[in-house]
Amino acid sequence: MTGPDTVRWRLDLAYAGADFSGWATQPGLRTVQGTLEHWIGQVLRLGGPASLVCAGRTDAGVHARGQVAHLDLPAEVDATVLVRRLGRVLPPDLIVRSVTRAPDGFDARFAATWRRYCYRMSDTPTDPLHSPMVARVRGPIDVAAIDAAAPRLLGLHDFAAFCKHREGASTIRTLQQVRAELVPPPAGAGPAEVPLGGHIAITVRADAFCHSMVRSLVGALWTVGTGRQPASWLDELLATRTRPSTIQVMPANGLTLEEVGYADDLADRVQQSRRMRTADELTATEDDDD
Amino acid sequence: MTGPDTVRWRLDLAYAGADFSGWATQPGLRTVQGTLEHWIGQVLRLGGPASLVCAGRTDAGVHARGQVAHLDLPAEVDATVLVRRLGRVLPPDLIVRSVTRAPDGFDARFAATWRRYCYRMSDTPTDPLHSPMVARVRGPIDVAAIDAAAPRLLGLHDFAAFCKHREGASTIRTLQQVRAELVPPPAGAGPAEVPLGGHIAITVRADAFCHSMVRSLVGALWTVGTGRQPASWLDELLATRTRPSTIQVMPANGLTLEEVGYADDLADRVQQSRRMRTADELTATEDDDD
Repeated sequence: MTGPDTVRWRLDLAYAGADFSGWATQPGLRTVQGTLEHWIGQVLRLGGPASLVCAGRTDAGVHARGQVAHLDLPAEVDATVLVRRLGRVLPPDLIVRSVTRAPDGFDARFAATWRRYCYRMSDTPTDPLHSPMVARVRGPIDVAAIDAAAPRLLGLHDFAAFCKHREGASTIRTLQQVRAELVPPPAGAGPAEVPLGGHIAITVRADAFCHSMVRSLVGALWTVGTGRQPASWLDELLATRTRPSTIQVMPANGLTLEEVGYADDLADRVQQSRRMRTADELTATEDDDD
Repeated sequence: MTGPDTVRWRLDLAYAGADFSGWATQPGLRTVQGTLEHWIGQVLRLGGPASLVCAGRTDAGVHARGQVAHLDLPAEVDATVLVRRLGRVLPPDLIVRSVTRAPDGFDARFAATWRRYCYRMSDTPTDPLHSPMVARVRGPIDVAAIDAAAPRLLGLHDFAAFCKHREGASTIRTLQQVRAELVPPPAGAGPAEVPLGGHIAITVRADAFCHSMVRSLVGALWTVGTGRQPASWLDELLATRTRPSTIQVMPANGLTLEEVGYADDLADRVQQSRRMRTADELTATEDDDD
């Protein structure tokens, strides 16, 4: 909570997930939150680590280019100093894109109205320079079949079949966008006669995601794309109340949190999010965003 | 040399350089050549490692998307089997893009008429997912100043100022292309209001490069781009016969061998390359391509 002597800041962050044990601080492990809180405390001489709240708690190996976090700091702290000093000490796989004064009522988690993720995968060898962000999976994959089947998942559903069960936590979410496309290999990379494979990018956007939900959704779409299940299987999954063992949770390295959207009317949104979530999720020990 | 019972194959290769100690086999180190020769020997049960010759011997940390190598194998070996088996055993940072029967007279090194490299650098934090291929350097850098000054380096020159001196080796080369451009950050990566920095890509193409020549050329251009030397300094460097300490050899992780070009009339070209080079470079213990 911000008091009269504190100011809330919004941090826009990007990181490569490979060498992090996910977002959330864990003793003895290199995490995004732990690294940031440590260095913010150091460069501002706070006498201890800072305390960050993020929009989507990413798992180990998951990347982010559009992660958002908030942070309350004593009113006298100068944000330009913070950005400059962090730029000197942070490792190359973790970038603070910007630190801006948060508007009234801003909360990185509860004021968010949507999260957009991209999952990248390939069934052929792709550009090794992009391999950290593209999961190598079994194929062949029919991208058009995925893109045609995906809209069945859109809208307000109970996504229990795609979520790790957590006692008392709701799995009802609104999937706002899902599409699959083929991304060609980079132009001019080696001889044109010997093309490197491109990759498949699956974009999903929802108000929020349960734990491992994106990777389970992509796993189901991948299964349809390989022809092992028909598109109608997705409807069956949406009608299921527990996660079936037939859904593959795809590898973490293909997943990137690309962007988080916020409401214009922040205070209303925070109230609404808290109402919807306090009863179920906040009783759980972990945040449930993927 | 190919005999009546052997067939020469052309391999098109791509690799991420970070975890390799360069191309050339070195005892006890993980190298691209060593890894490939080992696995080709294994999957074809040759009873020992194969023997590869490449177009450009890349240094430790340097990447490639268009490396070319040749390999002589017993006539009975099936190349489709080789590609399939290598795809199963090679690590994700090393890809055989294709194995094709080499035309008569083909030699990956001596039949090459040009090599194209790209050097990527940034003076601001860039997309951490692309950080393995973009060198972080001091700025601010004026890309337009680099692009305007670069043509002074074009043509046939003695590039001694840009080459690690090697007794008896020629440093005369023809620089066929050099340009600098700003590559924007990937679209849709995070919120548009908080852009990630793009990077500067410097493309150079020459008949061949001396050892560390690309990274020295880029170092000189970077110095001009930061305003610490005028464009005319490049002319002075071309008139110098030893490498001055003022030229920065840029970090390896920004460099990628993108493509190698071959003559249509291969036999003539091999003869010509050997004539030009045998006297000087082949007496040296190392190949001198960067």
